[in-house]
Amino acid sequence: MSNEVLALAQQLISRPSVTPLDEGCQQLLAERLAKLGFINESMVFDDTTNLWSRRGSQGPLFCFAGHTDVVPVGDANRWHTPPFEPVVIDGYLHGRGAADMKGSLAAMIVATERFVAEHPTHSGSIAFLITSDEEGPFINGTTRVIDTLEARNEKITWALVGEPSSTHKLGDVVKNGRRGSLTGNLTVNGIQGHVAYPHLADNPIHKAAPALAALAATQWDNGNAFFPPTSFQIANINGGTGASNVIPGELQVMFNFRYSTEVTADELIAKVQHILDVHGLDYDISWTYNGLPFLTDTGPLLEATQAAILETTGIQTDAQTSGGTSDGRFIAPTGAQVIELGPVNATIHKVNECVSVADLELLAQCYQRILEKLLC
Amino acid sequence: MSNEVLALAQQLISRPSVTPLDEGCQQLLAERLAKLGFINESMVFDDTTNLWSRRGSQGPLFCFAGHTDVVPVGDANRWHTPPFEPVVIDGYLHGRGAADMKGSLAAMIVATERFVAEHPTHSGSIAFLITSDEEGPFINGTTRVIDTLEARNEKITWALVGEPSSTHKLGDVVKNGRRGSLTGNLTVNGIQGHVAYPHLADNPIHKAAPALAALAATQWDNGNAFFPPTSFQIANINGGTGASNVIPGELQVMFNFRYSTEVTADELIAKVQHILDVHGLDYDISWTYNGLPFLTDTGPLLEATQAAILETTGIQTDAQTSGGTSDGRFIAPTGAQVIELGPVNATIHKVNECVSVADLELLAQCYQRILEKLLC
Repeated sequence: MSNEVLALAQQLISRPSVTPLDEGCQQLLAERLAKLGFINESMVFDDTTNLWSRRGSQGPLFCFAGHTDVVPVGDANRWHTPPFEPVVIDGYLHGRGAADMKGSLAAMIVATERFVAEHPTHSGSIAFLITSDEEGPFINGTTRVIDTLEARNEKITWALVGEPSSTHKLGDVVKNGRRGSLTGNLTVNGIQGHVAYPHLADNPIHKAAPALAALAATQWDNGNAFFPPTSFQIANINGGTGASNVIPGELQVMFNFRYSTEVTADELIAKVQHILDVHGLDYDISWTYNGLPFLTDTGPLLEATQAAILETTGIQTDAQTSGGTSDGRFIAPTGAQVIELGPVNATIHKVNECVSVADLELLAQCYQRILEKLLC
Repeated sequence: MSNEVLALAQQLISRPSVTPLDEGCQQLLAERLAKLGFINESMVFDDTTNLWSRRGSQGPLFCFAGHTDVVPVGDANRWHTPPFEPVVIDGYLHGRGAADMKGSLAAMIVATERFVAEHPTHSGSIAFLITSDEEGPFINGTTRVIDTLEARNEKITWALVGEPSSTHKLGDVVKNGRRGSLTGNLTVNGIQGHVAYPHLADNPIHKAAPALAALAATQWDNGNAFFPPTSFQIANINGGTGASNVIPGELQVMFNFRYSTEVTADELIAKVQHILDVHGLDYDISWTYNGLPFLTDTGPLLEATQAAILETTGIQTDAQTSGGTSDGRFIAPTGAQVIELGPVNATIHKVNECVSVADLELLAQCYQRILEKLLC
């Protein structure tokens, strides 16, 4: 078995590209891709470095998506090995970014090299969309590259995001969508006063409590085959002066929805406001749209991915939409099908992050098989 | 009409006795009382100066109760006149403490002087219980004097507290009791987690909301002829990390009861814990007893006070138990009857505190008439 994937992963890990730094990682990838006939475009927006690289001008367009930035190392003393000095111990490659997601980037490059070598005249096109701010505020990364592509009507057909989707074994889980995220900031207004004179005050906590109980008890939808039911969670609640004898004048509540494709953000907003109105609250509310939900239903990309995993690893993969957000949410709204497939995520964002060396090679084979199924 | 009351009130106001300072006020009172045959005991506890002064050794014992300390002046620039330079403007005596309660102290002294001059061999005894920490933490004031008296089995029969009880006209309101005050500090325990994985967390805000709604909706009692229904108010509520994507691990709630004599603190505590238990909460709770409720029902002191007010001012007084706490709560548990009667409270604890000069003289007459009804 070749050590090509491991070697490239080590080269990437040795660059300390803590978000939003790239530290030359994308240059390394671009050089490899240029040799295969890819056209590279470096798109720098403010503090973020992005790479758009494409081979071929025809559709359909298959795109590997990922990021070169990593999360901070935290307390470096708690690492068994220096986080930016990649080392293999007992079959595991250790270092910050090994699993999230420099291992995936290395597997993508090697898979593409092997695929192009065998199929130099493949149909369609292959692209790489790589950013350095996936772990940061995601303002100048994938979303701005997508804006640029949209402006020139360059459409991605299938996107494979290399996020570490696997739970126990490589390929046991892929993500074929993500829930939407919507945050509400609610202020319930009352009238401040002394607890000894409650008839002169209006306690916003008392008024809000039944409304919050109703919100917490509401079934927003029943989910569907790919999404769990929409979830509502109050993350913060604050009211009061600190004194025991003052009825506060207002109550602040911040809550978050993770919602399925069975409901829209506007429907959730209308339903929340209806519940607040029914309870007679005097309130102000503002909303933050953190991301729309998306779903890649049964179709060529999901089918190719499931088949490739089965053929490579023998595993019947489980397509899920749970978990946090990823840059897939910025690609999906263009109409692209989006799947996330990457290594086991047990150690991501932790000390002693690591990835199985054997899994990296398997992942490259899996990626290559997906290319074959879609572009041959 | 004499200016004796005004003159003494001015002497007291000119002493800047911001709590817990006395600044010689009690010495001034003690000298006047000594001339009438009172035996003075100065009781100094830590930062607080107290005066216990008594004329006679027989029962029943009538006691004037009050305080020489005043609240801070706040922004002195907002006062029209210097707060510790008493001055009469348009019939009102201006200065910090004019209404709360140096005017009352002056009226008590003058009333006693006139009463003793007319009735040198009155029945029973007269006493003064004066502290310098009524406006402070009330740790070293009235409560410790009462402890001292109890230890030597010296019992007050009737206490007249000079707190400014009047609302619009002198004598329109007296206080014949106060509600109890009980504070609960509640922690509702949950399990912290990421909002994207609600099944791994347990949101204490969601669990608490129905219980808080139930507490806010509970009718604790119906009050009685002298007390409004018991009031429950949540004063503070806090939960959350500030982030929108974290389910908090605990919720802090502080609430306060103002309760009538129809219920006891222990009954309230049991009822709260029952409601929390019924809602299945995992919680910790601690309680602070701020003061027991007390009531001076129909009897010699209330009747003498009502009659004295009617004869002096022509007003049918209204006996109420509303409002904040006073030092009466420390005297009542000994078995004493306790009434609060003092000037109009519209300007107390505010800038430009003032009191009607005519009312001070009327108050002295009223106090004197009460002495006559009880000790002649």
